[in-house]
Amino acid sequence: MKGLIGVLGGMGPAATVDLFNKFVTFTAANKDQDHIPLIISSIPDIPDRTNALLNHGMSPLPTMENYLKKLEDAGAECIIIPCNTAHFWFLELKKSCHVEMLNIVETTMNEVILTKKKKVGLLATNATLYMELYQKAIEENDLTCIKPNIDNQNLVMESIYLLKSGNLLLAESIMKKQAELLFASGAEIIVLGCTEVPVILEREIKNNPEKYIDSTSSLVRASIDWYEKRVGKHNLITNKNS
Amino acid sequence: MKGLIGVLGGMGPAATVDLFNKFVTFTAANKDQDHIPLIISSIPDIPDRTNALLNHGMSPLPTMENYLKKLEDAGAECIIIPCNTAHFWFLELKKSCHVEMLNIVETTMNEVILTKKKKVGLLATNATLYMELYQKAIEENDLTCIKPNIDNQNLVMESIYLLKSGNLLLAESIMKKQAELLFASGAEIIVLGCTEVPVILEREIKNNPEKYIDSTSSLVRASIDWYEKRVGKHNLITNKNS
Repeated sequence: MKGLIGVLGGMGPAATVDLFNKFVTFTAANKDQDHIPLIISSIPDIPDRTNALLNHGMSPLPTMENYLKKLEDAGAECIIIPCNTAHFWFLELKKSCHVEMLNIVETTMNEVILTKKKKVGLLATNATLYMELYQKAIEENDLTCIKPNIDNQNLVMESIYLLKSGNLLLAESIMKKQAELLFASGAEIIVLGCTEVPVILEREIKNNPEKYIDSTSSLVRASIDWYEKRVGKHNLITNKNS
Repeated sequence: MKGLIGVLGGMGPAATVDLFNKFVTFTAANKDQDHIPLIISSIPDIPDRTNALLNHGMSPLPTMENYLKKLEDAGAECIIIPCNTAHFWFLELKKSCHVEMLNIVETTMNEVILTKKKKVGLLATNATLYMELYQKAIEENDLTCIKPNIDNQNLVMESIYLLKSGNLLLAESIMKKQAELLFASGAEIIVLGCTEVPVILEREIKNNPEKYIDSTSSLVRASIDWYEKRVGKHNLITNKNS
């Protein structure tokens, strides 16, 4: 299947559902056959990324490489990973991969730059912050990164793990407060630099779409662009959700 | 991966998102790693099933067999298809498949029988009705099947294709009326025998869950049961959505 996109997901499963849903709702389609072809691995036994980076937990790399190979074997011509923290291993995964890969930090930063905002808030996992996946890119572009303080970052992390355990409502109330605090600290826009966060803040983003850059949405839009170039179609992205 | 479930999806993509979402929300999980392992094919170039059965359109069987093989090659130990109409080819697919397959008509009928209701309404595609996928099973169980009349069935079909083209709101208003008409005709419960219909009627089902048997939900619950037996876990289905 020409243009088949492989999704290395399951980190976590709810974030992978969100990505898949955005592929369907962002594509201007009149019938099933107009949609983007996807092969999705949601095999969630990949060791916890934050735990590996911050607590010397088991590395997720060998398992990710294994599932990435499954996607290649199934014919994927481009592979994406709906998990920001996992992008710490992006270069190593890219080395073991024989097809194109899109990087969620790059697709997100491209959208941040287009907004021309200077003060960028960041909601992400402890590990994504610790590895400075976003901060480096934000500073390279002469922008200011506004992060939660240590106590508040612990609450961000608590909210993410609450979603992973199925408690959306409590996760939402905690995360919404953290977004408000970043705006109060001067953030003009907030990067949702963990793919669980747009799931948690779905209602808030619907009400105030101009205040957030959702890393999952940026990855989906870039993937649809990639597909359009690969198969020679145009204008597949609907205006409804862009 | 022991217990890996393969999803032959993309018929249509929105219905496959709905199935995936139900796997995540129906599973009692405390962390990513507790979720059901899935490999999902959402490659939507499979020829339209209703068109093949009613208008001598191209058969979807060879393409379905091809994608089913991809799922087997990726290590799937059980395969499910979130499309009722595609189950017309279930026996042929099963012949070409080397692993277990669960049949959505069977999983749905098992849940219908448990309700002990006698008059069963049916919302499904023209092709599913024409091939009598559900009517036979309903009558074999000494139940009465209540279907829309021809004009109303055309509206059901219109609603399904509206969803496939991204117009959820219009699809919903048409389908809700058809459900009301089936209840007015004496239906005690309605089988949503097309996986697009629970997507279209999501709000109505949330308000009146006891009035509907959702074929997608039944397939997910049966798949979680299969997984529990395969890996020796128990009580993975959360009460929240059962």
